[in-house]
Amino acid sequence: MDARIAVDIGGTQIRAACYPDETMKPLAQLRASTQQPGKTPLESMFDLIAAVWPEEARVAKIAVAAPGPIDSKLGMILAAPNIPGWHDLPLKAELEKRFQTPAAVGNDANLAALGEYQFGAGMGHHYLLYLTISTGIGSGIIMADRLIDGAHGLGAEMGHVTVLPDGPLCGCGKRGHLEAVASGPGIARWVEEQLAAGEPSSLAGSQRLSAKEVATAAAQGDPLSLRAMQRGGTFIGYALADFLHIFNPTIVIFGGGVSRSGELLFSPMRKALEERVISPRYLQDLSLTTAALGDDAGLMGALALARSET
Amino acid sequence: MDARIAVDIGGTQIRAACYPDETMKPLAQLRASTQQPGKTPLESMFDLIAAVWPEEARVAKIAVAAPGPIDSKLGMILAAPNIPGWHDLPLKAELEKRFQTPAAVGNDANLAALGEYQFGAGMGHHYLLYLTISTGIGSGIIMADRLIDGAHGLGAEMGHVTVLPDGPLCGCGKRGHLEAVASGPGIARWVEEQLAAGEPSSLAGSQRLSAKEVATAAAQGDPLSLRAMQRGGTFIGYALADFLHIFNPTIVIFGGGVSRSGELLFSPMRKALEERVISPRYLQDLSLTTAALGDDAGLMGALALARSET
Repeated sequence: MDARIAVDIGGTQIRAACYPDETMKPLAQLRASTQQPGKTPLESMFDLIAAVWPEEARVAKIAVAAPGPIDSKLGMILAAPNIPGWHDLPLKAELEKRFQTPAAVGNDANLAALGEYQFGAGMGHHYLLYLTISTGIGSGIIMADRLIDGAHGLGAEMGHVTVLPDGPLCGCGKRGHLEAVASGPGIARWVEEQLAAGEPSSLAGSQRLSAKEVATAAAQGDPLSLRAMQRGGTFIGYALADFLHIFNPTIVIFGGGVSRSGELLFSPMRKALEERVISPRYLQDLSLTTAALGDDAGLMGALALARSET
Repeated sequence: MDARIAVDIGGTQIRAACYPDETMKPLAQLRASTQQPGKTPLESMFDLIAAVWPEEARVAKIAVAAPGPIDSKLGMILAAPNIPGWHDLPLKAELEKRFQTPAAVGNDANLAALGEYQFGAGMGHHYLLYLTISTGIGSGIIMADRLIDGAHGLGAEMGHVTVLPDGPLCGCGKRGHLEAVASGPGIARWVEEQLAAGEPSSLAGSQRLSAKEVATAAAQGDPLSLRAMQRGGTFIGYALADFLHIFNPTIVIFGGGVSRSGELLFSPMRKALEERVISPRYLQDLSLTTAALGDDAGLMGALALARSET
């Protein structure tokens, strides 16, 4: 019997699962902290993989979803700021050396797209975009049933397109990106700026706001918070019009905490999208929907990658 | 012997050529006006195809490059404003009925990208973007050796991404698109606006400026024209940074009349790109170059399509 091992690693925890081919019921599934005393994150990951390693099956491939940027062609982690020491790390080569088994590595947002495509909200679609809106904005692209991530796997960074040329500073150091304007921290920062300028709000006096607090206040009718969600949704809608013109997908799937704000965000987004799209043809077949796999998207994407030919 | 027929149709002329497989020397090559007295453009195209039809070879496929939104999957011309009557025209089906031969139809910018990829400036690259900058801005995308045009072939409209949210009106009816700001007419319109506002320039008093006149005046040192070219190039550079973040290509090929302005446009473009790109990794392997096939790009792309499996 053949099996595959899927791993999802983030700054906080590592998950690993071993799946026999052609079933979705794991033989073993475990999680551990990424940062354990006396161990490097790589050692913790190796231990977790060894712990789910099957006795009765042959492991045909190991695939890992990791935070980006990653050269997915080389299987090299270029930088993962939340994981100590993960900088220019040849993870694919390290895995293949340690386990004598073929390995593959992908960016977590790209693999979440692949997971939703194969096992989640995108099943049955061939042209899919995935946007995860939380502390950052990540994305994944499937076109004609293939993951699109560019020559070195550095593509699909749709949070880093400019929506406001002289807009706020983004986490990446550049200005006016979608992520700077419409991620959770981007939405919260705008509210803080309006509060500092003396705008009235039920949030007045709050320190270090989160997008969740803004969404809650908006749901309770706070006008400033409503405007903030509307502004975030509107810019996502503008960017989405661009993405439809570029990709002409049949489904766009939204993941991440901020997308759980629901209609507060999606209603202005749809309005902005309809206003900006160059032809109703782009909307004819289009589903806009939320992710189905939740926190499992990365792990399911790693499984899809482990089961793929490349 | 097998042969393929490639056709490129625009508002002014139709070109058709018949190529035997595995050589680039056409058996026959002809051109005709698109709008001839007493004939529809479709009849003119049929006649031209019949005229290049080989006596000794079997035609394995006919492929046509045509303007405007096309459902490339169905082979349907959705709208070609410059060709009378070409609206919701099932061109693939019409060709197959008339010639009893498999046919395929593609958007001319997408096929120009395919032509440059297969026979022109993009040879040897697997991840390629093509931008044609003239009266409009069109584009084509090749990723992992495949043309990317979305579920219905309506993708790769990279002229219609928003670069200035409240910017000038685009030909498509929306505001602030790259095409509205940096196409030939977009550059000329900005100069006209500055002249109307009383800016001094060697072009003062000119009526209905073209981008070519602006480029010529810029080359002669006219400060307003230099600023206009710089502004166009800068916005192309900003958009290009977004495109690199999305696609991570190894080459970007520029076609179209405006791109012949050379360094007047490319120097500010490169500066803007370097300023806006989120990591130098996107530039490491990247070639920025001009198209090699000139006016033949569409015909060569149609040939590439005629020789492809799909």
